[in-house]
Amino acid sequence: MLVVLDLLGVAVFAASGALAAVHARLDVFGVVVLAAVTALGGGIVRDLLLGITPPSTLRQWPYLLVPAVVALLVFRWHPAVARLRRGVQLADALGLALFVTTGTAVALGTGAPAITSALVGVITGVGGGVLRDLLLNEIPTVLRREIYALAAAAGAAVVVVGDRLGLPQLPVTLAAAVLVAGLRVLALWRRWNVPVP
Amino acid sequence: MLVVLDLLGVAVFAASGALAAVHARLDVFGVVVLAAVTALGGGIVRDLLLGITPPSTLRQWPYLLVPAVVALLVFRWHPAVARLRRGVQLADALGLALFVTTGTAVALGTGAPAITSALVGVITGVGGGVLRDLLLNEIPTVLRREIYALAAAAGAAVVVVGDRLGLPQLPVTLAAAVLVAGLRVLALWRRWNVPVP
Amino acid sequence: MLVVLDLLGVAVFAASGALAAVHARLDVFGVVVLAAVTALGGGIVRDLLLGITPPSTLRQWPYLLVPAVVALLVFRWHPAVARLRRGVQLADALGLALFVTTGTAVALGTGAPAITSALVGVITGVGGGVLRDLLLNEIPTVLRREIYALAAAAGAAVVVVGDRLGLPQLPVTLAAAVLVAGLRVLALWRRWNVPVP
Repeated sequence: MLVVLDLLGVAVFAASGALAAVHARLDVFGVVVLAAVTALGGGIVRDLLLGITPPSTLRQWPYLLVPAVVALLVFRWHPAVARLRRGVQLADALGLALFVTTGTAVALGTGAPAITSALVGVITGVGGGVLRDLLLNEIPTVLRREIYALAAAAGAAVVVVGDRLGLPQLPVTLAAAVLVAGLRVLALWRRWNVPVP
Repeated sequence: MLVVLDLLGVAVFAASGALAAVHARLDVFGVVVLAAVTALGGGIVRDLLLGITPPSTLRQWPYLLVPAVVALLVFRWHPAVARLRRGVQLADALGLALFVTTGTAVALGTGAPAITSALVGVITGVGGGVLRDLLLNEIPTVLRREIYALAAAAGAAVVVVGDRLGLPQLPVTLAAAVLVAGLRVLALWRRWNVPVP
Repeated sequence: MLVVLDLLGVAVFAASGALAAVHARLDVFGVVVLAAVTALGGGIVRDLLLGITPPSTLRQWPYLLVPAVVALLVFRWHPAVARLRRGVQLADALGLALFVTTGTAVALGTGAPAITSALVGVITGVGGGVLRDLLLNEIPTVLRREIYALAAAAGAAVVVVGDRLGLPQLPVTLAAAVLVAGLRVLALWRRWNVPVP
């Protein structure tokens, strides 16, 4: 079940990477590469931090097929450029939600302490988007004006607390993912911001 | 004792990241995230290179509390913007000095060869600042005009030579740190530069 | 024999990094650092993905001497600035060819599955150039308009298929490297491009 959520995260992050690449007017290979990096980067960093080598993402065909197919679909049928920015943001919110929560759950499954698992979860969720933005020469979303790191940390905390309370993993993970995605979408929709110096 | 020096390095690199983030007008979360990445990035890379997983930085509360507290303090009481550039440079010099030397010592402690330990030390010292500059879309300090890589290499060499001569670790590490910070501050103060093509 | 090809890759990637650094008007230390990062980055990432710690690149003198010497030679005798762009591209094509194929071979040697080995090979080949471009604040070559990821994937596939067919490793690796470099040079020469959205 974790694998299904993880693959769903791969698909939406691939879409966010592909849309951003189309927006930057990359060619078809650039779109596929950026989709793959965005989709797989977080999981690879997660596995390196947990000492899982080679990273599980690099051992299974679906993890490679999904970003490639998503990237080609986006390349072929991407909506009008004007709508791309919104699409990137929405796919990014879903990818963040799925990767933070499954990343935290995977880390807990290796026996890592609570604080480590939460941090690995946050890094897993944030990693792919940071790589996407770095490769496109943009200041990463996580550093910019909306509530992003906070949403990720809240989701990771819910998964860790649920684990410590012995609650069933799947509903807790799903609830945490809904929390993260909800916070991000609300922040975008209501233009919630936080103080600037 | 290494832990105290390491935490001091975390604090000053957190300050350098937070000041740079304030300078770039990031919001309060961006300031905390950039402070944490700058402060913890070098140590995480060090542990990955040495095969220490999960990285020790992600297992201990102080390593997380210190950057968060420093970032909030900087955010609240940062001096006039005009003075920020100097502050970033000074905190960066201290962080470099502490991380190069403790990174080299940690690597020697794992039984790594001399050359490996020196390189891991340099990467530990340089890593956090490189991540900070990359995330802010700036060409990293280590590539720019002042003596930076040379100061780091000199400090790492002193720690390695001291270890091989069987000298006591703490004074050697402190002396090496003073050397690195001194070289950096002198280079900034005297505008020492090196040839440009 | 793999080591010789690997060192040749280090040398040409060092040249590509050093030329790019000269082009960006970095000082002599910046040129050495960028040459080293470009030359060693791919191999370090390869070893981290395969769980080889500390990375073999950081354990052997030649891997450090070669980039430093190449960087100083380039710094001293670099051709007219106008010709630098072509030089970076050519050195980059050779480095890509050598690192993709030796990276794939090293991964196969650790017993990694075929798909993992091919991906590790591609990441090894692409890694150094991506780091070079990121540090100089440029969108990486691999994302830009020419056939790059495709050439890397083709070379990795040839090495994997040759291994599975039980062909002798050295000629297969060389043939794959010629294929990658040839595709890249042809793409540059004929201005082959692929569709843009």
